[in-house]
Amino acid sequence: MAASILSERDIEFMLYELFDAENMTLRERYSDHSRETMNAALTTARAVAEKYFVPIRQKVDTHQPTFDGEKVHMVPEIKAAVDAVIDSGLAAGAADYELGGMQLPSIVADTVTVYLTAAGSSTMGYTTLTNANANLIEAHGTAEQIERWVEPLRSGRFAGTMAMTEPGAGSSLADLTTSARKAEDGSYRITGNKIFISGGDHDLNENIVHLVLARIKGAPAGVKGISLFIVPKFLVNSDGSMGERNEVSLAGLFHKMGGRGHTSTALNFGENEGAIGYLVGEENEGLRYMFHMMNEARIMVGHSAAALALTGYQYSLAYARERPQGRLPSAKGAGSSPVNIIQHPDVRRMLLAQKAYSEGAFALCLLGSQLMDDTRTGESEELRLRADTLLDFLTPVIKSWPSEYGPRANSLAIQVMGGHGYINEHPVEMFYRDNRLNPIHEGTYGIQSLDLLARKVPMNGMAGYRVFVSEVEKTLEEASFQPELKDYAVELELAVASLTDTTNQLLHAMEHEPIDLVLSNSVKYLEFFGNVVVAWIWLRQGIVAARALADDPHEADRDFYRGKLQALRYFFRFELPETEAWAKLLVNLDSTSFDMQESWF
Amino acid sequence: MAASILSERDIEFMLYELFDAENMTLRERYSDHSRETMNAALTTARAVAEKYFVPIRQKVDTHQPTFDGEKVHMVPEIKAAVDAVIDSGLAAGAADYELGGMQLPSIVADTVTVYLTAAGSSTMGYTTLTNANANLIEAHGTAEQIERWVEPLRSGRFAGTMAMTEPGAGSSLADLTTSARKAEDGSYRITGNKIFISGGDHDLNENIVHLVLARIKGAPAGVKGISLFIVPKFLVNSDGSMGERNEVSLAGLFHKMGGRGHTSTALNFGENEGAIGYLVGEENEGLRYMFHMMNEARIMVGHSAAALALTGYQYSLAYARERPQGRLPSAKGAGSSPVNIIQHPDVRRMLLAQKAYSEGAFALCLLGSQLMDDTRTGESEELRLRADTLLDFLTPVIKSWPSEYGPRANSLAIQVMGGHGYINEHPVEMFYRDNRLNPIHEGTYGIQSLDLLARKVPMNGMAGYRVFVSEVEKTLEEASFQPELKDYAVELELAVASLTDTTNQLLHAMEHEPIDLVLSNSVKYLEFFGNVVVAWIWLRQGIVAARALADDPHEADRDFYRGKLQALRYFFRFELPETEAWAKLLVNLDSTSFDMQESWF
Repeated sequence: MAASILSERDIEFMLYELFDAENMTLRERYSDHSRETMNAALTTARAVAEKYFVPIRQKVDTHQPTFDGEKVHMVPEIKAAVDAVIDSGLAAGAADYELGGMQLPSIVADTVTVYLTAAGSSTMGYTTLTNANANLIEAHGTAEQIERWVEPLRSGRFAGTMAMTEPGAGSSLADLTTSARKAEDGSYRITGNKIFISGGDHDLNENIVHLVLARIKGAPAGVKGISLFIVPKFLVNSDGSMGERNEVSLAGLFHKMGGRGHTSTALNFGENEGAIGYLVGEENEGLRYMFHMMNEARIMVGHSAAALALTGYQYSLAYARERPQGRLPSAKGAGSSPVNIIQHPDVRRMLLAQKAYSEGAFALCLLGSQLMDDTRTGESEELRLRADTLLDFLTPVIKSWPSEYGPRANSLAIQVMGGHGYINEHPVEMFYRDNRLNPIHEGTYGIQSLDLLARKVPMNGMAGYRVFVSEVEKTLEEASFQPELKDYAVELELAVASLTDTTNQLLHAMEHEPIDLVLSNSVKYLEFFGNVVVAWIWLRQGIVAARALADDPHEADRDFYRGKLQALRYFFRFELPETEAWAKLLVNLDSTSFDMQESWF
Repeated sequence: MAASILSERDIEFMLYELFDAENMTLRERYSDHSRETMNAALTTARAVAEKYFVPIRQKVDTHQPTFDGEKVHMVPEIKAAVDAVIDSGLAAGAADYELGGMQLPSIVADTVTVYLTAAGSSTMGYTTLTNANANLIEAHGTAEQIERWVEPLRSGRFAGTMAMTEPGAGSSLADLTTSARKAEDGSYRITGNKIFISGGDHDLNENIVHLVLARIKGAPAGVKGISLFIVPKFLVNSDGSMGERNEVSLAGLFHKMGGRGHTSTALNFGENEGAIGYLVGEENEGLRYMFHMMNEARIMVGHSAAALALTGYQYSLAYARERPQGRLPSAKGAGSSPVNIIQHPDVRRMLLAQKAYSEGAFALCLLGSQLMDDTRTGESEELRLRADTLLDFLTPVIKSWPSEYGPRANSLAIQVMGGHGYINEHPVEMFYRDNRLNPIHEGTYGIQSLDLLARKVPMNGMAGYRVFVSEVEKTLEEASFQPELKDYAVELELAVASLTDTTNQLLHAMEHEPIDLVLSNSVKYLEFFGNVVVAWIWLRQGIVAARALADDPHEADRDFYRGKLQALRYFFRFELPETEAWAKLLVNLDSTSFDMQESWF
């Protein structure tokens, strides 16, 4: 059975029909690029994915890294795959030429990452994290720090991590206790323990650059006293050669349900004198810098969740096309031959739901990538600001919606395949396990919902919300010219009106009712909001498809666009209507969870 | 952290307050029993679960059985645990005294199984399957077959399997090709391949008794030509001593995402002369007999899914009570200490949802067990018939609802614990993997939905549906005496009216519209139906709680009953309202999945 990693046709649709990535090449930063060079990057990604990632994914999953007390051991194929990404130039696709990057627009570089993540999310984790680490130092480090750390990170000599979480302070960074003491030479001595540090120790690279949050002695309590430090595994001499081992030691590995090839570590910093660390930017500003990285990381979590959903969909689709079993109710008892299971309406429902979830999530994340491009290289200050506002506003949704619906898609991929989906002869059960991390890391689903409702929505007089609604209005206007989209436009308009009404009532309640009560249903608000955003994204896809169909395309394209319209229909018939119940719950300020007492459990 | 496997208080509530299991002791079959003897069985179950099951569950999960080409190897602790269940007399709790059973009512015997399954579903799988196998032979075998096979199955000398699935015929038994040829001595020679046979080979017992579906040469095509055979791994001599190895060989093991200690095998029958098999009952009646077992097995799948949901809830609850992290929004910035996470309303929501799902599922399954008791030992023919009708009708829901909501509960248990829920230091990620099998085996979710809508609902002039509605009406009547339940009663009444309306419209459509279209949304019907059934079950629990609260109970009980009412409220506020959207979809005969074309994917 030959299943595609991703649908080539859908990538073409997303990049060039929905988001007009070609337009990016008009911008100075991307002027060397063309549709051909962007496609070349994707072709390379596919080749690397097929040659280095797919063949090893099962082995990587079933042979987790081990720690013998001194070193971490992992299957050597991981290094070959990581190196292949670096050697092909794909590791830092969006980075500057002078730092070894390909200077691709984010929307293309992120699609490259989606390709590789779909083919091996564990293995790709090392690369994406290293990239995020380099981006942060590049944005906030000194010229000397950029030269010393970013170059080898981009070239693949060094790997990077982000070391935030502590045993006693997971999501609550205000309580972190890792400490930093200034030394005479201006560097710091770092002491503390961190857990769940992905890629925290391995021998894939010469060195590992940890970005560590710590509290300088005497700093204020809470989030205002947190600084950010570069703490390398090996010190680097002034000539760039490798120096002594720093005081960073591996305390142990965690064994995760999924993403099993990507080490998750407990690290001890400074068991004797303190690990040597270098302050990034200003003292006590660490959290702000980390959030620079975190916001990008949240978008990438969305992409990851979408990638796993997309590839699980492709796999179960290929299976359903080839697997004969059973008969339609109308043919029962007629002595007919079994049909391929894709003929069963309920299997079609499960495939259509996967299509709606995964392509909806992918389009949402690519919107995030496009907004990132526009924030950085938009033609006007106005465009850049508007993009920045919208991206900041939508980040909790871009992180959360794919993380919630991606695993649902993967569960349906299993279900389509029945018992065959539950065994490791096929990768869909692995996708399901891998994807389950996404609603947890980089801020849980609950934290995203609080970020949305308590911060992003009210921020700057609802500026983000307003930009979002005006974008939806543009889409509704465009949809009004397509007769077959009219009903959907009406439904989306009603849903947005309900969302706005609900939002206003909640903001009003925040000022007049106990805040803990008002926020107690924030997750339902995020679900409501997310489904409206994705309905909008689907309507945008529908407009492109309806227009293309009006031009009488050739048969394969006609089928493709019909599929887009059908997935849109699925979303509007099966998913969007549930939000009415959630709106009611929210508007009523339902106090079920708030009223629940610990002693009643 | 000490987490209970199950809540003792909740078991007491279910057995003695909600279902009045004590009343069973008035029936002749159970006249030796009392609340004390029933509790003794549960206490024993708990002791065995704590001593033999919980300590090994992680090891069993991480050391899957292996096959060296000759033998299956598994961690020896599994045998100790299986033997402990047998030695304690719990293996066949509901079976007759004379066959080595404890002659417990099903409702108690099934609760024993839930206890052991919650503590180790993989390990318990061997026992429950053996039991189901013995039940079938006992019901349909000859006296000689019962003596030869059932006794050693009950005593734990032999294990049992059910061998239905084939590589080319999974859910579609009509297409099975395993053949049987009658030999001169009246026995048969069986030839064919079976897959996904749980417990298909191991050395836990002296012998393995396979119940094999096969087609006798010349039998009609389809489901009407299937017969059932006893095919032992080792032949048994007429004196009961072990004879030669039969032609049943292990082709390989499957590696599952969960339930990893329970071997899933590919078996070859009759690679030379044919495996020797013994016909059970009449020729070509095999499927009917197998469905006897299957219906019980489906109830037990519900129990299993509920067990994993219940224990995941208990575990995440214990964690949430002890884990300090973060502050309430109202206390932010106040320099306060972190609170235990159970204080966060969203964590309470996730715990409350787990409570609503898991205790709703458990009560639903115990209703099934009670109906099984009433079918067999009810005081009057009328009661027996009514119970049989209702049980047959509800079986697809009892199988499916816990299988759908159980994994959701387990996902929430992971989410409550964040990163700690995703690693194998804690068992919740295992529960999540284990539970994902339940919507697949013994008839997938989709198949259950077709069974419900196309068979069980219209059957005998909607006899089952009518009994169900009359039971709900009794509950509504009782609820009307409890002021605080009035709103819920109204909402349930409306939901049942909507369900009945939807049902009538669908049955009408089945006669006037293409059947494949009408059935294309059967899963949504099952979801709608399931949530109404569970809302009813929750209202029944609420009535018990409200009555008990009126009696001014002591504090711990007051808290417990308040918790029941709050979970009821959760279900009616968060879950039941979504069914309105599904009703609309069904009544509109939505054709989204039906219209979707293969070429559009």
